[in-house]
Amino acid sequence: MKVLVLFGGESVEHEISIISALQVANALKVEHEVIPVYISKTNKMYYDEGLLDLNFYKDLDKNLKNKKQIKINKDENNFYIKKRGLLKKKHYFDIAFPVVHGKGMEDSTIHGYLRFKKIPSVGSSLSFLSACQDKVLTKRILKSEGINTLEYVHISNINEIDNIKLSYPLIVKPNNLGSSIAISRANNKKELKDAVISALSYDTSVLIEPFLENIRELNISVLRKGDDIEVSYIEEVGNNDILTFEDKYEGSSRKGMASLKREVPANVTRVLKNEVEEIAKKTYQILNAKGVIRIDFIVSEKVYVNEVNAIPGSYAFYLWKDKYDFVELTNIVLKEARRETFKEEKLIKTYNKMDIFSKLDTSKSLKKTGP
Amino acid sequence: MKVLVLFGGESVEHEISIISALQVANALKVEHEVIPVYISKTNKMYYDEGLLDLNFYKDLDKNLKNKKQIKINKDENNFYIKKRGLLKKKHYFDIAFPVVHGKGMEDSTIHGYLRFKKIPSVGSSLSFLSACQDKVLTKRILKSEGINTLEYVHISNINEIDNIKLSYPLIVKPNNLGSSIAISRANNKKELKDAVISALSYDTSVLIEPFLENIRELNISVLRKGDDIEVSYIEEVGNNDILTFEDKYEGSSRKGMASLKREVPANVTRVLKNEVEEIAKKTYQILNAKGVIRIDFIVSEKVYVNEVNAIPGSYAFYLWKDKYDFVELTNIVLKEARRETFKEEKLIKTYNKMDIFSKLDTSKSLKKTGP
Repeated sequence: MKVLVLFGGESVEHEISIISALQVANALKVEHEVIPVYISKTNKMYYDEGLLDLNFYKDLDKNLKNKKQIKINKDENNFYIKKRGLLKKKHYFDIAFPVVHGKGMEDSTIHGYLRFKKIPSVGSSLSFLSACQDKVLTKRILKSEGINTLEYVHISNINEIDNIKLSYPLIVKPNNLGSSIAISRANNKKELKDAVISALSYDTSVLIEPFLENIRELNISVLRKGDDIEVSYIEEVGNNDILTFEDKYEGSSRKGMASLKREVPANVTRVLKNEVEEIAKKTYQILNAKGVIRIDFIVSEKVYVNEVNAIPGSYAFYLWKDKYDFVELTNIVLKEARRETFKEEKLIKTYNKMDIFSKLDTSKSLKKTGP
Repeated sequence: MKVLVLFGGESVEHEISIISALQVANALKVEHEVIPVYISKTNKMYYDEGLLDLNFYKDLDKNLKNKKQIKINKDENNFYIKKRGLLKKKHYFDIAFPVVHGKGMEDSTIHGYLRFKKIPSVGSSLSFLSACQDKVLTKRILKSEGINTLEYVHISNINEIDNIKLSYPLIVKPNNLGSSIAISRANNKKELKDAVISALSYDTSVLIEPFLENIRELNISVLRKGDDIEVSYIEEVGNNDILTFEDKYEGSSRKGMASLKREVPANVTRVLKNEVEEIAKKTYQILNAKGVIRIDFIVSEKVYVNEVNAIPGSYAFYLWKDKYDFVELTNIVLKEARRETFKEEKLIKTYNKMDIFSKLDTSKSLKKTGP
């Protein structure tokens, strides 16, 4: 297949998307033709042969200079990209594979764009994508079906911190961001204020949760394959500490990724393993998820779903290694996306009873009607 | 202001969107410049002076013939539409106002498209729009905060009807459609099967609810104005009967729109009025709604939220008449959308600690990382 891999875009997780996308592209390349499309921080799209080389991004401004923007389009049922301007070559593709992270992209922005252009894409459930990006909405949806999530306060204004009834220490997160960006622990009101102000500079609202001591953090990936929902190995991460973005990605930190305790498969009892797997499958179903997702758990007295990642970093391939290698994983996802597209295409798009205009008396002004 | 009114599109509610949009455009015209853009059933966009005349749609194929498609774009911070081809005039605008209904448009497809193009638009909360389009998701979100919704079964395959435990009569609805399209009552298993098959030809999943006798149906509209959430008059509709699409829009039906019992304001007790208003405001907040919405209630022993319409038919202007005329209503909505856009624009879009590439050793193959 010819697969259009889309990544980057106006999101604070722009750079992480580049890394995830290049990993996915490397896996896809084994069996498919990959057309990489980089989306700039102002949502301009570029295609270039060099986009699959990480070095391209080390000197991005220089490398993008003089590159022409592309546009995505279709003629009949064929999808293509084409450089702006006349008489440029069209590059045809079969399906789009957005590997994007964060608000402004992963929240169904790019999928909505593709759907409007009638371009089939991987993981294109708009309601699932946008529900996961909004952490409060995720909590509400899961809570309604009896899945435990941490208690929380949701605020959009710094003045609201006076009314918070939760006990310190607290954890503060932008409601719609991922990758631990602008996340912090607050041990007192002064720190809470600073944390909320910082988070509100990245997002319009903020989530505040209790910071639980002596917890375990477990992650699991879930995917659909035909009629089955499958779960990956469980991973244990962290050292009962908040991992900030700096801890995860900054080489200077002693807590950097390399030193992160990561155990796959996690050393968990059969009972805990079963519980995590069951909740993970149920979460996938309730949210009507598509593609490969990763669900992050916190385990204290209870098992809590902490976060659902609609498009996880590194596409969570490392959690599937014993079951599917990365090439198989991408093939499963592509196959599911084709199946979804086929189901959607079969649906009736015009209601056969819809014959309003011939009956309207247009000499009169418009009256109230409607759904 | 110069307002781009977008309507139509690939949705079974295409025609109803045209009517709603023309009503909105008529109101906007009083104080603003309106640029109407019609989206065809294959999502091609057209601009024409005649688009605000209903007669245009009576002979659509003929009238669209030889019309050039337009594209929406921006240069610097100015948004414009332009006919495809060279040297055509640009029509600049300030904000987009999508008046679309139904799956494929109202479910954040068009808003995602606009957001990707960085074009400000009215009512652009992607998570709200897509959560409302998915009736099951709406129920789950509201249930989590103690708001009553009818019990239901959600199925995506005709074979699943054997396991349904609800008692007849039942009501069958496509999960993601509005305007009463493909909705039907089933009094027995044979009728249920027919109803589900019919609904599944319009949508990938179907919602089945008990059909309650002797109920009242109340609607209310809600909007945000600055820090306040305001509610409209309550309307009472129907005659304890299911209104199918045919009942609502087909002139031939004895039950047509004109004969529909509609009482505004509804004759309700102060207690019921307060309860409906309170639930309506809470629903608006929980869903993080934007713009003017309409919430439909069913009242039997309890007050149930039956449906939330993110972009209601006729923009629900008729429910606000005592408080705001249609011109004021559209101005409130435009002002709120500008305020939202301003808030979003102020947010930091690049994480200042994001300096991954300079530290990566690109001579090695990509390792696992990610959010």
